Amino acid sequence: MKLHFDPVSTSSRSVTFFLFDQGISFEERIVSLNAGEQRAPDFLRLNPNGLVPVLEDGDFHVTQSATILRYLADRHAPATLPSEARARGRVNEALDWFSTGFYVSYCVFLAYRRMLPPLQAMPAEGHLAMEGLGQAMAAKYLAVLDRHMLGESPYVCGTEVSVADYLGFAHVTLGEYLDFDLSPYPRVADWVRRMKARRGYDPAYATFRGFVQAARVARAAQAAPAEPAPADA
Amino acid sequence: MKLHFDPVSTSSRSVTFFLFDQGISFEERIVSLNAGEQRAPDFLRLNPNGLVPVLEDGDFHVTQSATILRYLADRHAPATLPSEARARGRVNEALDWFSTGFYVSYCVFLAYRRMLPPLQAMPAEGHLAMEGLGQAMAAKYLAVLDRHMLGESPYVCGTEVSVADYLGFAHVTLGEYLDFDLSPYPRVADWVRRMKARRGYDPAYATFRGFVQAARVARAAQAAPAEPAPADA
Repeated sequence: MKLHFDPVSTSSRSVTFFLFDQGISFEERIVSLNAGEQRAPDFLRLNPNGLVPVLEDGDFHVTQSATILRYLADRHAPATLPSEARARGRVNEALDWFSTGFYVSYCVFLAYRRMLPPLQAMPAEGHLAMEGLGQAMAAKYLAVLDRHMLGESPYVCGTEVSVADYLGFAHVTLGEYLDFDLSPYPRVADWVRRMKARRGYDPAYATFRGFVQAARVARAAQAAPAEPAPADA
Repeated sequence: MKLHFDPVSTSSRSVTFFLFDQGISFEERIVSLNAGEQRAPDFLRLNPNGLVPVLEDGDFHVTQSATILRYLADRHAPATLPSEARARGRVNEALDWFSTGFYVSYCVFLAYRRMLPPLQAMPAEGHLAMEGLGQAMAAKYLAVLDRHMLGESPYVCGTEVSVADYLGFAHVTLGEYLDFDLSPYPRVADWVRRMKARRGYDPAYATFRGFVQAARVARAAQAAPAEPAPADA
């Protein structure tokens, strides 16, 4: 089994965290987004969308992180995606919730806007509009995650970790790139800490942590005054 | 079994088309988005996100159109979501594809921008930025749908209709509200015609067709000159 991915991609991290954490061995094939390898003809034959991750399992290959998680769970970690219809519906619901409204508001409008070149290239007013919408919508969704989905549960679908936790964690921690403040959502912040304590976190997120650090250094340099301020200012 | 929905909601139509088409009987409970019924306390207890559709099946209720489709297919129409892992992966992949990149570019950036009040309220430059991004991204995704997902197949996952067709059809036909031109994508246009010939289309889409007509009348009125042009102009 081979995973084509880039550790800087959010969708990739949801799958690698799951694989490392559940102890499922796989062959790593890095597709460097920075070098444009997702647009190479060989890769486009594997995924005409030019996106990572892609899972190859023998002569079968499949795309979309949530789909890959469902496929892997059914074959290698059934406790993370129950087969009983209602319990399965609950996990699918959380996966789809993270993939739709939460993804648009928090990942696209807030984070990708500052990270992905086609969105970065927007005029300033486009950024302002997306930021306003993203903040308002993300606050609504994070309140639902905090009060209803997590509530008194350690994981988004109850007492056991599910594939929805791995997908959702990748989305929510994308906010670290923006120093997004999770303190108004204490259960979300606790859940992030709980997920970070798992064994799969370190190998899957090491590159992203470097990426976050570099963004902080760049922001600090930008925020610093061009000339030292006088000591008595 | 009861479905809480509004026929003007795209996500709702993906589920009602499926139910009518597969001959699955259900109790209709209209939640008028226009009247704000999705924000009523009783409804928020059912779905704290304040979104339709919601399926109630006995003492179980579940949200998210793609999740509802998966749940209903497994229980009532297994041919529309195969149980074999790879065939199922193919259908899940198409559902997730429509729900993520396609949804953001085509539904949010192009259509919802002109339909939903919080997005409509953006400044003009925000609209221009979203329109440009949406057109470029939607063209990329529609080309993939046309050449790779449909290709020589009548349905998005092969020779038989699947839940991904119902979800995707609701997304793609949202473009009718904007008179979006599908002619560069002949296989997509054929698939839309094929889906419209199915028995479930009429009952699920009657209200939306009225909505599209009203939008056309409004656009024509806006485009008409304020005073009649002289005949020899």
